[in-house]
Amino acid sequence: MVDKKEFDELKTKVSDLEKLIGPNGSLLEEYLAEKEKPKSVSIVVWSGEYDRVLPAFIIANGARAMNMDVNLYFTFWGLKTLQKENHRPKGTNIMNKMLHYMLSGGPAGAKLSKMHMFGIGKGMITKLMQENGISDLEEQMELAYENGVNIQACTLAMGIFGMKKEDDFSDKVKSYCGVATYLMDAINSDITLFI
Amino acid sequence: MVDKKEFDELKTKVSDLEKLIGPNGSLLEEYLAEKEKPKSVSIVVWSGEYDRVLPAFIIANGARAMNMDVNLYFTFWGLKTLQKENHRPKGTNIMNKMLHYMLSGGPAGAKLSKMHMFGIGKGMITKLMQENGISDLEEQMELAYENGVNIQACTLAMGIFGMKKEDDFSDKVKSYCGVATYLMDAINSDITLFI
Amino acid sequence: MVDKKEFDELKTKVSDLEKLIGPNGSLLEEYLAEKEKPKSVSIVVWSGEYDRVLPAFIIANGARAMNMDVNLYFTFWGLKTLQKENHRPKGTNIMNKMLHYMLSGGPAGAKLSKMHMFGIGKGMITKLMQENGISDLEEQMELAYENGVNIQACTLAMGIFGMKKEDDFSDKVKSYCGVATYLMDAINSDITLFI
Repeated sequence: MVDKKEFDELKTKVSDLEKLIGPNGSLLEEYLAEKEKPKSVSIVVWSGEYDRVLPAFIIANGARAMNMDVNLYFTFWGLKTLQKENHRPKGTNIMNKMLHYMLSGGPAGAKLSKMHMFGIGKGMITKLMQENGISDLEEQMELAYENGVNIQACTLAMGIFGMKKEDDFSDKVKSYCGVATYLMDAINSDITLFI
Repeated sequence: MVDKKEFDELKTKVSDLEKLIGPNGSLLEEYLAEKEKPKSVSIVVWSGEYDRVLPAFIIANGARAMNMDVNLYFTFWGLKTLQKENHRPKGTNIMNKMLHYMLSGGPAGAKLSKMHMFGIGKGMITKLMQENGISDLEEQMELAYENGVNIQACTLAMGIFGMKKEDDFSDKVKSYCGVATYLMDAINSDITLFI
Repeated sequence: MVDKKEFDELKTKVSDLEKLIGPNGSLLEEYLAEKEKPKSVSIVVWSGEYDRVLPAFIIANGARAMNMDVNLYFTFWGLKTLQKENHRPKGTNIMNKMLHYMLSGGPAGAKLSKMHMFGIGKGMITKLMQENGISDLEEQMELAYENGVNIQACTLAMGIFGMKKEDDFSDKVKSYCGVATYLMDAINSDITLFI
């Protein structure tokens, strides 16, 4: 015959186990939630060169098409990619003006990292891309904005270059933040890159 | 005395718990499998410069020696690393021919990113590597092929540059794929880099 | 009435479940420990240029401020960042001497990747950083040493460049190691970058 006390002890054990793994906020459910949350990609876009910014957007748009969350954190030379077209330098002193001049342009102003020295390069690449039906940087950026890629501008680098939200950036840039925001996104990301 | 109904309820609870964590496809076993699967590294090799491609292969071969899975995804300027030696440009127009010329070479044709401007550089580095018993890029590539590093060529960048599988690439390159394949590998990788 | 044998079988099942998920070294506790261990960042600092090394330290110091573990693995051109100020070349032959000359300097000697070609650049950037209250590279490095960023020098690249621990490096560099150490750190890191 089964002892009542022994049975009650077993009941308590089962109840303890249920607390650990059963429904309502248990660890196992947490693990399950972790597994089921969307995959995510965080890319620091440090470079402003056409041939580096382009793969950043190709990876970003590819990842969005696969339902991943994507953060593109633009800093340093990458910031020029987010600027308004035909942007004119507005710096308060000669240094700022020179920097703005070098940083101006938006995606249309981006140059190749290598081949420019031969006087060829970007025109050639974009023509070949067109011939092969591959979207250019401006189209890739447009796609990224439409598809909900989280495009962020680094406020620290903006400070260095004397850039202002309202003067310099495309209206489509919604997020201005520092390295702490980047880090919080990146520690929860499955893919982290520095381009 | 223990009530039969109460006992049966407890049995059901234990059975539910077993379904969650017991043998045969449970979550806990999934977690265990996840922990026991080999670690993995995915590197985008965007650059074609000797001093950047070399560390990509050093990391790749080091990781294989530690039983990690390794994917090297070659794109843009990185593609030239995978080309046949003494490759001759075969483009269909003048632009393709110029691009091919600039991209030609295989590992022996790779240049340094910096020191070339001084007219020294690669010969110096490779001589020093030889003196110090460090394998050069060609040997590192050979090792990577032998040891099962998964070497992939980006079909989108091949399209831009007008490169053809059969005309341009070493027979040893087995995998030609797009950004979706890269992303699927990379989300399951413990280390992701863009070089 | 409850059968004694049936009850004992249930007890065994509960005991088996407790072994899997209960206290004392169970998988679930392992999972919990995994979740609670500090987040970590591993960065390969391959570049020696001011505008690339600076973001490496900004990310590193930001991550330390958020209680993450941080490894900065300096290799190739990045090694010059760790050298003593006013370091004089000590190579045993002409090639080593030339390399040392090109690699010398410590953080104060680092140049910009782009704007140097205009004859402006680093002085401009550091002046703007000063004006905007942003710590320069030397201060960022000092902060990193103080805050316990794990700064590592790659012994393989040191071998290539003929660099010696005692002749070339700041006393503050404590860790000299190879790619295997980098990989062990990086597979346990939440953020991995190549700068």
